[in-house]
Amino acid sequence: MKNKGLALVKLGGSVITHKDRPLAANTGAIEGMAKALAGIGMPLIVVHGGGSFGHYWSVKYDMHTRPAPYDPHGVAVVHESMVALNQIIVNSMIKAGANPYAVAPPAYAAGHRPMAARIKELAVMAQNKMVPVTFGDVVHMGGRKYSILSGDALMSMLAKSLRPSRVVFATNVDGIYRDMETKELVPELRQGSSKRRQVDFKSGAGVVADVTGGMQRKVREAFKIASMGMDVVLVNGLVPERIAQAAAGKAPVGTVIRGRK
Amino acid sequence: MKNKGLALVKLGGSVITHKDRPLAANTGAIEGMAKALAGIGMPLIVVHGGGSFGHYWSVKYDMHTRPAPYDPHGVAVVHESMVALNQIIVNSMIKAGANPYAVAPPAYAAGHRPMAARIKELAVMAQNKMVPVTFGDVVHMGGRKYSILSGDALMSMLAKSLRPSRVVFATNVDGIYRDMETKELVPELRQGSSKRRQVDFKSGAGVVADVTGGMQRKVREAFKIASMGMDVVLVNGLVPERIAQAAAGKAPVGTVIRGRK
Repeated sequence: MKNKGLALVKLGGSVITHKDRPLAANTGAIEGMAKALAGIGMPLIVVHGGGSFGHYWSVKYDMHTRPAPYDPHGVAVVHESMVALNQIIVNSMIKAGANPYAVAPPAYAAGHRPMAARIKELAVMAQNKMVPVTFGDVVHMGGRKYSILSGDALMSMLAKSLRPSRVVFATNVDGIYRDMETKELVPELRQGSSKRRQVDFKSGAGVVADVTGGMQRKVREAFKIASMGMDVVLVNGLVPERIAQAAAGKAPVGTVIRGRK
Repeated sequence: MKNKGLALVKLGGSVITHKDRPLAANTGAIEGMAKALAGIGMPLIVVHGGGSFGHYWSVKYDMHTRPAPYDPHGVAVVHESMVALNQIIVNSMIKAGANPYAVAPPAYAAGHRPMAARIKELAVMAQNKMVPVTFGDVVHMGGRKYSILSGDALMSMLAKSLRPSRVVFATNVDGIYRDMETKELVPELRQGSSKRRQVDFKSGAGVVADVTGGMQRKVREAFKIASMGMDVVLVNGLVPERIAQAAAGKAPVGTVIRGRK
């Protein structure tokens, strides 16, 4: 099934936190995006990254996506910091009049393995005026092992199950730049087309430093989602109306990666 | 299986919050209990109630355990307030040197229905130095319906699956009083014995006002757990060493309800 009226929006760590300062939420940006999201008027699921909260601590405690017996105190601290950041976003959304409902990944995934029925439940909630707000986190993988499950990986997981009509990544830059010097934006890319090669990821074009794994990983996940047949839009969350435009299917300033139909 | 080395501890809303003031955590009591829990030195799962947080809002928004299409904004506010209270407890435990990991009920229950494999995962985490900290909450029941799943109900659900060696309820009173005037404590009750009738719940003996459903409901859940063959101890969380004593299998000041063997 394709969820025609569903928008899946990722708020990147670079736009919800100040990446240059540990444990600093960008409350101004969050408030702006919360207002934009509250006004979208269509079923919505929000995913967010860790930025200077979860990502900061996961680096301190040397934690990665690879399952391993990481320091249990580090696991506690990373998880707590992600819930703290989530609370700031949820509270902002409540103030903006939306109905957010925090959902940690174990509610719909066993480790990194998606639980299809539980993911569909998120869409049912979204169709009934609730906004599930989930986030990258450190999750239990069995025994003493834990692992980082990133917000970008969650975007692919949720998109694959729910096939939302709109998939939006909000970061702190306008989209994918063809040239970092001139900041020339690539307005559209086609998944699988030769155009992809026009963006030289390795050399740094289109690669803007981003605390939660960088634009490169984001672009890789975006292409992965586009390969499933959905359009993916990359916009600047610091100009929050672009998120609303992208969710509404309008063409905002940003980069659209057209899905393979 | 019986989890010989596992303690299941409920921190009641009456002891973690000031029930006479909305949205007021009893941070002093929480700190004391966090220290006691950090020193227990055995696998531990913590459940907490809503007190003047979740319970306060659920009353305001007229929400109950009965599944119904409650106001989505109320659902958002109740859930957020429970996560906020959970954060205070989790942070206190981290400061005390423990490794708490917040777990909302949807990680191990579909609506009110327990997911056995996921509940067992909580015990595996507990056996490996993590302390799952879960809480009564408003949960999705399908479609537009939500429902309150109380901390006391979670105690029965978790005890049934995990058969912990110690089940402890911490409230703001010493235990079950035989006589409210003299505050005479009932040190021991036997599940299914005639002694139960010595405690006149209806007349108010043993019934001390408690924001999260009252002592009466707590005692009912405690008897339910005891009927599964486990001893249940009711202690005063304001004297936190009693929680540690109860978890360690010592006889603290309080009321023990002996399980049917």
